[in-house]
Amino acid sequence: MRIGVLTGGGDCPGLNAVIRAVVRKGVETYGHEFVGYRDGWKGPLEGLTRPLGLEDVEDILARGGTILGSSRTNPYTVDGGVDRIRENVRAAGIDALVAIGGEDTLGVAKRLTDDGLGVVGVPKTIDNDLSGTDYTFGFDTAVSIATEAIDRLRTTAESHHRALVVEVMGRHAGWIALHSGLAGGANVILVPERRFDIDQVAAWVKHRFDQEYAPIIVVAEGAQPSDGGEALQSDELDAFGHVRLGGIGIWLAAELEQRTGHESRCVVLGHIQRGGTPTAYDRVLATRFGLHAIDAVHEGEFGVMVALRGTDIVRVPLAEATAELKTVPPERYAEAEVFFG
Amino acid sequence: MRIGVLTGGGDCPGLNAVIRAVVRKGVETYGHEFVGYRDGWKGPLEGLTRPLGLEDVEDILARGGTILGSSRTNPYTVDGGVDRIRENVRAAGIDALVAIGGEDTLGVAKRLTDDGLGVVGVPKTIDNDLSGTDYTFGFDTAVSIATEAIDRLRTTAESHHRALVVEVMGRHAGWIALHSGLAGGANVILVPERRFDIDQVAAWVKHRFDQEYAPIIVVAEGAQPSDGGEALQSDELDAFGHVRLGGIGIWLAAELEQRTGHESRCVVLGHIQRGGTPTAYDRVLATRFGLHAIDAVHEGEFGVMVALRGTDIVRVPLAEATAELKTVPPERYAEAEVFFG
Amino acid sequence: MRIGVLTGGGDCPGLNAVIRAVVRKGVETYGHEFVGYRDGWKGPLEGLTRPLGLEDVEDILARGGTILGSSRTNPYTVDGGVDRIRENVRAAGIDALVAIGGEDTLGVAKRLTDDGLGVVGVPKTIDNDLSGTDYTFGFDTAVSIATEAIDRLRTTAESHHRALVVEVMGRHAGWIALHSGLAGGANVILVPERRFDIDQVAAWVKHRFDQEYAPIIVVAEGAQPSDGGEALQSDELDAFGHVRLGGIGIWLAAELEQRTGHESRCVVLGHIQRGGTPTAYDRVLATRFGLHAIDAVHEGEFGVMVALRGTDIVRVPLAEATAELKTVPPERYAEAEVFFG
Amino acid sequence: MRIGVLTGGGDCPGLNAVIRAVVRKGVETYGHEFVGYRDGWKGPLEGLTRPLGLEDVEDILARGGTILGSSRTNPYTVDGGVDRIRENVRAAGIDALVAIGGEDTLGVAKRLTDDGLGVVGVPKTIDNDLSGTDYTFGFDTAVSIATEAIDRLRTTAESHHRALVVEVMGRHAGWIALHSGLAGGANVILVPERRFDIDQVAAWVKHRFDQEYAPIIVVAEGAQPSDGGEALQSDELDAFGHVRLGGIGIWLAAELEQRTGHESRCVVLGHIQRGGTPTAYDRVLATRFGLHAIDAVHEGEFGVMVALRGTDIVRVPLAEATAELKTVPPERYAEAEVFFG
Repeated sequence: MRIGVLTGGGDCPGLNAVIRAVVRKGVETYGHEFVGYRDGWKGPLEGLTRPLGLEDVEDILARGGTILGSSRTNPYTVDGGVDRIRENVRAAGIDALVAIGGEDTLGVAKRLTDDGLGVVGVPKTIDNDLSGTDYTFGFDTAVSIATEAIDRLRTTAESHHRALVVEVMGRHAGWIALHSGLAGGANVILVPERRFDIDQVAAWVKHRFDQEYAPIIVVAEGAQPSDGGEALQSDELDAFGHVRLGGIGIWLAAELEQRTGHESRCVVLGHIQRGGTPTAYDRVLATRFGLHAIDAVHEGEFGVMVALRGTDIVRVPLAEATAELKTVPPERYAEAEVFFG
Repeated sequence: MRIGVLTGGGDCPGLNAVIRAVVRKGVETYGHEFVGYRDGWKGPLEGLTRPLGLEDVEDILARGGTILGSSRTNPYTVDGGVDRIRENVRAAGIDALVAIGGEDTLGVAKRLTDDGLGVVGVPKTIDNDLSGTDYTFGFDTAVSIATEAIDRLRTTAESHHRALVVEVMGRHAGWIALHSGLAGGANVILVPERRFDIDQVAAWVKHRFDQEYAPIIVVAEGAQPSDGGEALQSDELDAFGHVRLGGIGIWLAAELEQRTGHESRCVVLGHIQRGGTPTAYDRVLATRFGLHAIDAVHEGEFGVMVALRGTDIVRVPLAEATAELKTVPPERYAEAEVFFG
Repeated sequence: MRIGVLTGGGDCPGLNAVIRAVVRKGVETYGHEFVGYRDGWKGPLEGLTRPLGLEDVEDILARGGTILGSSRTNPYTVDGGVDRIRENVRAAGIDALVAIGGEDTLGVAKRLTDDGLGVVGVPKTIDNDLSGTDYTFGFDTAVSIATEAIDRLRTTAESHHRALVVEVMGRHAGWIALHSGLAGGANVILVPERRFDIDQVAAWVKHRFDQEYAPIIVVAEGAQPSDGGEALQSDELDAFGHVRLGGIGIWLAAELEQRTGHESRCVVLGHIQRGGTPTAYDRVLATRFGLHAIDAVHEGEFGVMVALRGTDIVRVPLAEATAELKTVPPERYAEAEVFFG
Repeated sequence: MRIGVLTGGGDCPGLNAVIRAVVRKGVETYGHEFVGYRDGWKGPLEGLTRPLGLEDVEDILARGGTILGSSRTNPYTVDGGVDRIRENVRAAGIDALVAIGGEDTLGVAKRLTDDGLGVVGVPKTIDNDLSGTDYTFGFDTAVSIATEAIDRLRTTAESHHRALVVEVMGRHAGWIALHSGLAGGANVILVPERRFDIDQVAAWVKHRFDQEYAPIIVVAEGAQPSDGGEALQSDELDAFGHVRLGGIGIWLAAELEQRTGHESRCVVLGHIQRGGTPTAYDRVLATRFGLHAIDAVHEGEFGVMVALRGTDIVRVPLAEATAELKTVPPERYAEAEVFFG
């Protein structure tokens, strides 16, 4: 078989580990040949390829990012896009595709399978918000980086008797906030799944100061205050209802300083959460995903993605995987609340 | 309720995170009081206690080791040991115990429950070889440290055209070797579950040198060669059939140097695998174990340990958990073999 | 002797290492007694103390921040401030002070010495902008953290064909930008000491994209464009001539995106550069500073600060140390320019 | 000019950073051409080369080891070795050599300069024992890795009430032991420069246990007991007077366990101290060394090596640099003694 591989969406530690495992097992166990498609779905759309042999994947396991490049191109929003992919794939003698990506990339994979192409998906998102799998690779790395940052910020908070707000990624799901907040010993964790009461948050922070400790607040970028009224002017929200101008973290730090009378500072971790070498956990998960994805391709089982269930790698229909965002359930958030205040 | 907490066996990153979560939820949610028992089962045996209130656990989440100390004391091998524990526990007004430990510690917990004490167990081992739970905390930290070491050793191997043997922990189970070997991109992984053929290992190493790469071999301390005959003199094995004098890693490096004609070096990682601050993964797992253990205590469900199943924390009977060592299954080892040579 | 110790100004990795070394050598070698003053000069001003014996410094070497707390209080801006300090110090039986801090804290130390108190200074600033010493502790940690961040951001830049702007600390001096930029392999480094030409920066970035690499730009928070005219409206500058609203990094990323036609993102590292455990380098430097500071106190040589010269710790007059900011000299910046573009 | 570059001796974090800086400045500033010689002096001896252009050094700054390979080949111990080098260098049109290495490599560089070749040296050793320079690159990385290991081992020591012996590199000089011991808060530091009294060491360790702390002992591999008599049988020493069979660390742990009655363990860090990505400090130092070395080549000043003096990079005669080993002076060791016991 001749197989195309592509990576789509935001970059994520572990992408290269998947690519390496797919190629290594494909070549050595099954005798497959591989073609690398550049920049996500843009690659098969425009016929942008690069060689992808054993030597190309020799040294990439520990490297962040993706040697294939990435983009957010969606062939279904391009005139004649699907036909061009079909044509390019046929012309290159490609029998099947391995598509590594998040909701959008896998959504395209699903539709292309419905439209007759053989695609196997590998779930990827640092946000961990894909249904059908216990965890996605990249998440553990993001949580680790955020936790290290919280560890560092704690000593600043304590030395200066300040509240420190740490804004982490998570537009629609609070997984990074929840896990890094638990791991970093945060005193408040705010997630998009539950609107927060700024008065309650200020009370927790104040209680913490009263005990002579310095509060750490971890907030997902997508977290929002419950109908703030005076606190938050409507024109400070953008079209999606998100706080504008600097994000929720900066707004929150300003509010807390005003309400508690204690200095408050905000750090927005941003892109450092998604780059660099993957943790050991993510390297193992990504490697196992790659090994099992190429098995599925070899067996001709398309329209599925690989997924983690407990300690097993299984296959689930792409349809199921992309149906619904996996958000933090109330009972997991409740677990963390014992540490608030 | 008044609850005693103890940690037994080898130290393990995450012990303090469990203790903190148990105390925090016990005090704040249930109004429990806590007593810290020192040095594993030696604590209740000899009545060695220390205070364990909210302020004692305030700052310990990220700290390795255990503030309670540890030991391998087994009250069932001490004359009248169980009676002394029962007496000391009653005298201290203790209603229940939370025992955090591995096979031995939990084995005692099980027998004490049978003998009438209320004990809830929390599984702990960097080796990940406890049945009944997907993972134990401490394992991810050990794998991370071993993987970082492999990353570092790779550049030495390549610059000097040497084989590098990395001996990791795992006397009876190869989990650390398997995961760190996968994460570090090892060219051979040797585990106690499968005796290895030294000729085969030398052939893989030689093949690797022939391709102008430098081979990395990860070997669990408990791995052993298959019927060694000439290769390994019987007097080089200790009473348990383990290679004596410096361990399997040093023997292996010497053998590989002789058989391949290439310089080979060994590094024995030893205790650095079990100390220091836990990874974010282990902090979250340990914290969740602690929260659920105190729930079990509060509900009076004794003789169980908490366990990870997928993303859920569940309770399993201690009997089940300590019945059998969880070793690396053949299919997991086979997954890794595609990367050998 | 009875000696007071205080830490002033922004927190800095290594403060606790100094405190430990001062106390350890003072007690064990000289038989001194110590009093900890809380929160910088606010401590002696308001008589806020805490115990500072061997057991208080036992476990603090590796901890970021300062166990004494910090503030920016300046007794010379408080009515009768100096008299109150003199009185509090006398009442507490204090013979001398060790003041650990940056320009402001040491400036006060100098004036207090002139006003008759015995003070020895220890230079501290993550910015490395104090004259009289080759390096200050905290700087190496800040550079390390910034370099790790750049390493991580590089893979994101490459995978997405984006320019990444990293804004680091340094309001008046570009040392952190220079060193982290060199260590991280930045393609442009911008410092406050040299106004930059935005057209030149855009040209370098474009050249880099043309070679199919992804550019990394490291910019000190105090860097400024040369009189930008149209590029930068005057009302976007704050009272100090700094770019307002999100800082220079965010402005720069927007400019580069517009001028090069390539996506550009900015990460502002902020407070994570100054918190957390110090590097080994900073722990050694801080420890040696502490050991030599207490020697100076013991010998009654006041009005000096300890300083690094080559590999030696020497004493320099506080007057000299606080006279002039140590900025990046043109020849050091020129060294780095070979890597631009 | 056409310039050959080689790296000799043990690998060392920062070698690639030097190579990159030499090539980058040589090509861009001076228009030089470069040839990479493989495996130290073996390269010019046997005419083993590899291309060394801008694209070859693009991505190597942060990588440990050396892309040129290394060896301990000494042309002066090979019949006609120098003539063969002279011939190979002339045949390749090479005008000058940049030799990056330690005492041995630079010793050859000196003799070749005397024999008429144009060589500029760059000092390299993780041991920091080269005269003529304040520090060598690689040392800071080695100290950082050893310090991290000590940080981790401390929690194991404390949890198990054990003494932990950490054996670090340093056959003839104790710099790594001194700096990592200071940075890690060791309770005893043993270096080759000062024979130790095992009774005194045991007394310090015991004192530490009596205070209910767990002792950490850092020992350089080349440290030796003062004439031990009964303690150390002569047949346990190898030809160089070093303790045989497992090294000084293992011997020391056994002695301490016997003499103090407390469990003692040893970890030998070995090769992980010299591999992997360099610290930011070493990347900056190595980069500056490379930039200044190519300046010396360009100016035709041969027979020198670059060196760090304070914050300046200077040139010193190779003769001076290789004359004498730079060992830990008594006053630096005395500084550390205040922390013993």
